[in-house]
Amino acid sequence: MNTGELAELGQQLRVDSVRAAAAAGSGHPTSSMSAADLMAVLFARHLRYDFERPDHPANDRFVLSKGHASPLMYATYKAAGVIGDEELLTFRENGSRLEGHPTPRKLPWVETATGSLGQGLPVGVGLALAGKRLDHTDFRVWVLCGDSELAEGSVWEAAEQAAYENLDNLTAIVDVNRLGQRGPTRHGHDLDAYARRFQAFGWHTVEVDGHDVDAVDRAYGEALSTRGQPTAILARTLKGKGVESVQDREGLHGKPLPEAEDAIAELGGPRDLRITVHAPPAGAATRAPRITTPELPRWERGEDVATRDAFGQALAALGDARDDVVALDGEVGDSTRLEYFAKEHPERYIECYIAEQQMIAAAVGVAARGRLPYASTFAAFLTRAHDFVRMASVSGSGLNLVGSHAGVAIGQDGPSQMGLEDLAMMRAVHGSTVLYPCDANQTARLVAAMAGLEGIRYLRTSRGKSPVIYGPDEEFPVGGSKVLRSSGQDRLTLVAAGVTVPEALAAADALADEGIAVRVVDLYSVKPADRETLRTAAEETGCLMTVEDHHPEGGLGDAVAEAFSDGRPVPRLVRLAVRNMPGSASPEEQLHAAGIDAASIAAAGRLLVGEAIVS
Amino acid sequence: MNTGELAELGQQLRVDSVRAAAAAGSGHPTSSMSAADLMAVLFARHLRYDFERPDHPANDRFVLSKGHASPLMYATYKAAGVIGDEELLTFRENGSRLEGHPTPRKLPWVETATGSLGQGLPVGVGLALAGKRLDHTDFRVWVLCGDSELAEGSVWEAAEQAAYENLDNLTAIVDVNRLGQRGPTRHGHDLDAYARRFQAFGWHTVEVDGHDVDAVDRAYGEALSTRGQPTAILARTLKGKGVESVQDREGLHGKPLPEAEDAIAELGGPRDLRITVHAPPAGAATRAPRITTPELPRWERGEDVATRDAFGQALAALGDARDDVVALDGEVGDSTRLEYFAKEHPERYIECYIAEQQMIAAAVGVAARGRLPYASTFAAFLTRAHDFVRMASVSGSGLNLVGSHAGVAIGQDGPSQMGLEDLAMMRAVHGSTVLYPCDANQTARLVAAMAGLEGIRYLRTSRGKSPVIYGPDEEFPVGGSKVLRSSGQDRLTLVAAGVTVPEALAAADALADEGIAVRVVDLYSVKPADRETLRTAAEETGCLMTVEDHHPEGGLGDAVAEAFSDGRPVPRLVRLAVRNMPGSASPEEQLHAAGIDAASIAAAGRLLVGEAIVS
Repeated sequence: MNTGELAELGQQLRVDSVRAAAAAGSGHPTSSMSAADLMAVLFARHLRYDFERPDHPANDRFVLSKGHASPLMYATYKAAGVIGDEELLTFRENGSRLEGHPTPRKLPWVETATGSLGQGLPVGVGLALAGKRLDHTDFRVWVLCGDSELAEGSVWEAAEQAAYENLDNLTAIVDVNRLGQRGPTRHGHDLDAYARRFQAFGWHTVEVDGHDVDAVDRAYGEALSTRGQPTAILARTLKGKGVESVQDREGLHGKPLPEAEDAIAELGGPRDLRITVHAPPAGAATRAPRITTPELPRWERGEDVATRDAFGQALAALGDARDDVVALDGEVGDSTRLEYFAKEHPERYIECYIAEQQMIAAAVGVAARGRLPYASTFAAFLTRAHDFVRMASVSGSGLNLVGSHAGVAIGQDGPSQMGLEDLAMMRAVHGSTVLYPCDANQTARLVAAMAGLEGIRYLRTSRGKSPVIYGPDEEFPVGGSKVLRSSGQDRLTLVAAGVTVPEALAAADALADEGIAVRVVDLYSVKPADRETLRTAAEETGCLMTVEDHHPEGGLGDAVAEAFSDGRPVPRLVRLAVRNMPGSASPEEQLHAAGIDAASIAAAGRLLVGEAIVS
Repeated sequence: MNTGELAELGQQLRVDSVRAAAAAGSGHPTSSMSAADLMAVLFARHLRYDFERPDHPANDRFVLSKGHASPLMYATYKAAGVIGDEELLTFRENGSRLEGHPTPRKLPWVETATGSLGQGLPVGVGLALAGKRLDHTDFRVWVLCGDSELAEGSVWEAAEQAAYENLDNLTAIVDVNRLGQRGPTRHGHDLDAYARRFQAFGWHTVEVDGHDVDAVDRAYGEALSTRGQPTAILARTLKGKGVESVQDREGLHGKPLPEAEDAIAELGGPRDLRITVHAPPAGAATRAPRITTPELPRWERGEDVATRDAFGQALAALGDARDDVVALDGEVGDSTRLEYFAKEHPERYIECYIAEQQMIAAAVGVAARGRLPYASTFAAFLTRAHDFVRMASVSGSGLNLVGSHAGVAIGQDGPSQMGLEDLAMMRAVHGSTVLYPCDANQTARLVAAMAGLEGIRYLRTSRGKSPVIYGPDEEFPVGGSKVLRSSGQDRLTLVAAGVTVPEALAAADALADEGIAVRVVDLYSVKPADRETLRTAAEETGCLMTVEDHHPEGGLGDAVAEAFSDGRPVPRLVRLAVRNMPGSASPEEQLHAAGIDAASIAAAGRLLVGEAIVS
């Protein structure tokens, strides 16, 4: 396409954006119009992509970080010939693939779900890392960002990692249209302000008039020829470009154009230009991962091993058996024991430093390139990346997340380091799996089992040593549980997981000595929970007491209650959980202060069996 | 103090840090030793602080962002004469005020809890904003940061806001000791790398040898004399400074010194120097907020009003009645309706742009300065700030958080914009309150009621209009509920909140027409929940069905189940919730697809009353 045709293509993308939003009665046409020329030049001149084979290993990767500009994305798909005009006009309709914000669950050409701002560039860094460090394939990653979203710190976590990893296969295209949702951005059209920031973080920058297609073309060329560092193209644009009544005006974010027919006429009416997108270079082979059965570490009953240690060793072993395993660390690999993997497989270890949002985003990126990521930090600090986990679930991304230092059991470090809400956070993720092992062999099995699941799967590990109570050949199906104490005379069931399992066992033994038979269930699979075993325990013992090193809301207690939400009769339920705000103290003192140690459990059990009310 | 004395004071702080960690058997002495000279000069020469009156309005504010260097903080308190040597050696003991990471719940001189890295500077920005924009008092805010934590994006959100707001009352002191937890940082001792970044964001910078007390003194002086922009002092230091066996070495993070006695001797042994901290300037008066009874907006039954609109109007009215109310926006004030407050009270409106972490941190900062912050964005995007909310609860901070656009009911925008896990997140916060109103009058009352609560209180609002079902004089106590349908023949209780209340009412009316009497409870106070009313409903109707526009985990269903966890008999429970991954669709289609509209509720109700199992 020549200059004139590119400009015409830009107008077509604007017209189709306006038409899609008009048909929907909602959407973000003005945010689409500012970036139309940037998209036209990119797709017509520079992107290398086989729409027939979205999984082609040499395909460039495009991420629409400003996901609300979805009409522009879909207009571009139409110009590329992969959706028709009729489908374009289904935008935002029930059942349409063309959602308000694009997601790979619906469209094969979308790399990651966007719509929560400041996430596209971080995931783009993950894709570029996959290309450079894992695939060793020279596809390029292009990310179209808004200017408003550069206020998100996650963008600068991404900028830092991209420059540090010398990701010259990554280009950020910033659509500087001056206007955010509710008014002007902090920096307006001051391109230099953004350029200074990217340069300071180690990026090459290019400033350009985003409506001058030749200049935009040269800027992309400059990005392609830049070596050793990522490039940020800062494009001065106008929101609503091309329609006088909306162009560069406030108060028009996220609204269809008031007079769509007139606007379309002003833009020169509909066109039907077709983009011939460049094919990716031949030769790159689709990588088939080598997957064998892992030789997991084994421990003998009676040993004392921290589940974080078991996790680290099991992951290193899984990495031996599968070359698609990638580990991502938040600069705490010595504590989470991810360092065991680092020692064995340094080429598949990505140090993200203290930037948990970027760690998750990078995991989403490498997962999109067919890898099996395990990302780990303290359970408490995974809360930092909650929105990224949420969006990963919208993407349908397959991530393994491992949170260490769970609960008050960490001891002296105090509440800032204690994961006490991680189970609530992870249970509430759509389609998630939540696992909480209590011993080393169980941990190793679950680390391997996670690999075969869909969606977000979470493993919670503990800092201190705990006794190995299962043999190395025991199996732990996801959704299962283990009944550790049981008799025909059980008057109560203790449901525990992780650090509270040994406490529950000790309590059960103490009660047994007093003639009170108590069942103990190890609910290592918190979600999905083993409803059948819980139901049986309820029917046989009449009363269930959950014991968890977590706040009372959202964790084990809620999970067990949920297992009885099918309308059938519910047993009596009691929950022991961390209701205090902990301070510094030894692990034993912490468990006692929270009322979740063996003595507290036994005391509550006695009351409950005596039919007293425990609240 | 002269140069020699300052150097001696630095050594004393090191010795006491080593002693405290040795006594505890854990802690971070090497991270304390690197910053000892920075602290010595600051507290002896520049800080203005009355330890007898931590609430003195003219006090400077000091934040230890690298909270793990708590031994240094406590050693400084000892040198300032506010704790004794005996207490110093209780570091990390059960019951000690000297926790592993400092928190204002224990010590009156601590502004905010730290320990999750990258949060101290953001809160410091909030404190500095309070001084400059709200108090108009020229106290200064000093934040001691680690170098590792500059990898957190939140630091750059803070840098951006500080420069934009011209916070020349703020100084960041960065202890560049080269070593993170597991090894070298990305930039090692490259002070320029950090300086470039801060400069690009608009800060004045000073590079200094952090062990040269005269140079450090001059750097603080330069910060004090810099006008119109914040200053970052980048101090080259050595981790473990002063003890050859640990100085500048890897693998010694977070560990007591191996040979504490030898190290203390090498540092010149214990000393007992006293710091005379400068008094704050006289004259600044303690601000007494003007608090009157708000004239809340009123609506008539039958009007259609979005609860987000009611929130905006109520907050503007509350702002009229109380001059301590401050609103913080994440660049969506037009959507959340926080803009209503902005129009009435622009001087108390803080636009944080799209930086939710910074929004919460700024709220924590202004709350620490005696203000009543209301921070609002989409419920979905509050997940971005989860770790900041968590740490605010560790601080004991009083924050009002308002999440709009809750649930699938937003319609076409799709899942990226839907808050579907916010109730789970907020319920699991220690000591939190979670409110979810269904109509405008209820919303207004709850907006006012939040002001009087402790801790983190969360209000969930909805995008679309809903019918006003309560009169304007109805009261809604926190912890209460409303029984909207009730009879002696009720065979089922529907428990709803927010958008599902009108749906439940419609379902109940439809079932009533079929001769099935159904009770309806509006559980607007999700936490604490009204156990008494739920218990009565359980006893009288035998079966409870919760209906929520939220994922099944952690929300209303879990809250109701939790209300029956006191060991007494539990009713039959069923929960309707959002189990699908929504796409784009109209609000009505979304509610139906999720199975939480009136028709779905009625259908489930019929099954349940017919004793069928609904799972």
